[in-house]
Formats: sequence, structure tokens, C-alpha cells
Amino acid sequence: MAVGRVYLAGPDVFLPAPRQRGERLKAICRAHGLVGVFPLDPAPLDPAVTDGLPEWRRIALANEAHIQGSDALIANLTPFRGPSADPGTVFEVGFMRALGRPVFGWTATDSTLRARTEGGAAHDADGLAIEDFGLADNLMIPGAIAASGGALFAATLADPWGDLSLFEACVKAAAAALAG
Amino acid sequence: MAVGRVYLAGPDVFLPAPRQRGERLKAICRAHGLVGVFPLDPAPLDPAVTDGLPEWRRIALANEAHIQGSDALIANLTPFRGPSADPGTVFEVGFMRALGRPVFGWTATDSTLRARTEGGAAHDADGLAIEDFGLADNLMIPGAIAASGGALFAATLADPWGDLSLFEACVKAAAAALAG
Repeated sequence: MAVGRVYLAGPDVFLPAPRQRGERLKAICRAHGLVGVFPLDPAPLDPAVTDGLPEWRRIALANEAHIQGSDALIANLTPFRGPSADPGTVFEVGFMRALGRPVFGWTATDSTLRARTEGGAAHDADGLAIEDFGLADNLMIPGAIAASGGALFAATLADPWGDLSLFEACVKAAAAALAG
Repeated sequence: MAVGRVYLAGPDVFLPAPRQRGERLKAICRAHGLVGVFPLDPAPLDPAVTDGLPEWRRIALANEAHIQGSDALIANLTPFRGPSADPGTVFEVGFMRALGRPVFGWTATDSTLRARTEGGAAHDADGLAIEDFGLADNLMIPGAIAASGGALFAATLADPWGDLSLFEACVKAAAAALAG
């Protein structure tokens, strides 16, 4: 019996076969009694609102509606094209945190944001300070996860896209939180 | 007479003299009848909640409380250490969007996310697609700004940290939206 709906945030939508990826993630959710909601799933949008909008605005509203309709969020926070997570995913973590529901995250590296930025320097080339709290990413992200009652799983994975062990750890934690 | 409180999101807190920066931004807000709320301002937090928490968690909760207490948000979305905006700022944009209040943003480049990523290629080295909607950043960000009733100002500025003309454009737009 499903105990809740979980929005699956992450740059996984940019993979060459994103729908197969979504089905794989949803199967893991199902095995733990959860319904996974993938960004590409059809969203309940009011045509009166979305008719005439460009595609990118409809996608943004669909993802927001998916998050609104979910009980928790699991974010793939693996560094993406830079020292931090995918910005679309980070936006969605903030959105769900404001709704007050639990946020879970995983990242395929156990390095800190500081270690990954400008070779571990204290300041960047513009003289701006680089966060040094020993965290996986900007403090708003682990701060939100902790305050929401969620959890963050970090470990260096040899196959960051293929190894879903940390994702599954999130699913288990979310199932326990939503059942409790 | 102040017509509203505006949270000032951005990587400006990492500048060498962040409090002076905050005062400069707040002076511009004041000139347009708004109260600027800078992340480093004291936040109304319950000691029963924050006592014993590490500094990074108190900072995260303070910023969330500041956003909760503001009527609108202005985000410095200039690309930060990579093709996208500062992740802490993007988190806060998502947080405010979920609260349903207007979000304004500015960025000191008129280039697109696509043009700034991997030299404008269609896919990155991992084979993941790079967004191609002609937007300033991941579609969730301009999507949220548009849906919130806010506005996004983008232009290539010779002095991205010193030139506050686009920030002031956001302040004027926020003042008009909150007065209306």
C-alpha cells in the first residue's frame, strides 16, 4: 500500500533516455511502498492558465504542480556542470522546503563544496569568500534538508549515474518518514 | 512611506565587505519606498529552536525566516562560479515562489544558459542535454519569476558588482507591484 507521493527532482531529465530513467526510479519507489512522481509525468494543469504559454513556462508550472501534489521530495544533488547541484533541482528543494514537507537528497561525492571550488581556496578570483562549513553544497540546501526532517546521503560513487544505492537510501528514509 | 519588505537574495554576502553592500542595496530600496532585508540582518528566531544548532543551520533558518517575513524577493542571478546563478540564491527563489509572492531577478549578462554551457553545445561530456529555450538560466527560474508576477532584467554590465542599475530596475518594479 502506497504511503505517499514523492517528487523525483534531479538533472535526470537531461539524460538521453529520461523516461526509462524515470521508470527505473519509480520502480524503486514502488518497492518501498511509495509513488514516485517524475518531472516528465503529465501534470494536472488548468488549460485556462497554460494555453498560449511557451513550452518552458508550461514545464515550469507542471513541475511546480507536481511538487505541490507530493508529500516529500528526493533530490539528486550530485555536482552538475560546476561545484554545485543542478540549479533546477536546487530551486525545487527550496520550493518544497517552503511547503514544509520533508526533503531528502543524495550526492555521488563525499567531497565538500569548499574542496570542489577554486581548488579549495578561501576566496575566488573576484575576492568573494567560499563557504567553509564542511558541507556538501551551499548551506541553504543541507540546512533545509535537516530542518525539514529529511536526510542527506553522500558517498563517492564510481558510477554516479548508474549506481542508485544512495537514491534507494533516500527512498527508504522517505518511506519511513511518511509512514511514521 | 514603505509599501513593503523585500528580501535581497544573492551571493553579495560573500563580498569582502558584505554589510556595506547590504546598506547600499537597502538605501536604493529606501529611495523607492521599500524596506530591504539583507541576509545578514538579525532574524526573529526562536532560541528554543536554534539553541545548540551549528552556525550553518542557524544561518539557513535565519534566511528562511527573512523570506517568510518579506513581501517580495529580488535575486542577483548573475552567473556564479559556473554557467548558473549562486545555488543559495536559486534555493531562495524557489522558496519564495512556493509562498506565492512576487520574485524579481537581475543578471549582469544577456547571454543564454545554453551559450554559457560547454561552449554552446547541445549535450555535455556525459551526453546530457543542455537546455535550449533561449533563457538566462534553468527554466524553473525565469518560469517562477514570470508566474509570480515579477520581472527579470538581463544586460551585459561592464562592472557586474559595481553597477546596480539592473538591481534598481528590480526595486522599481517591486515597488510598483507592491503598491498596486
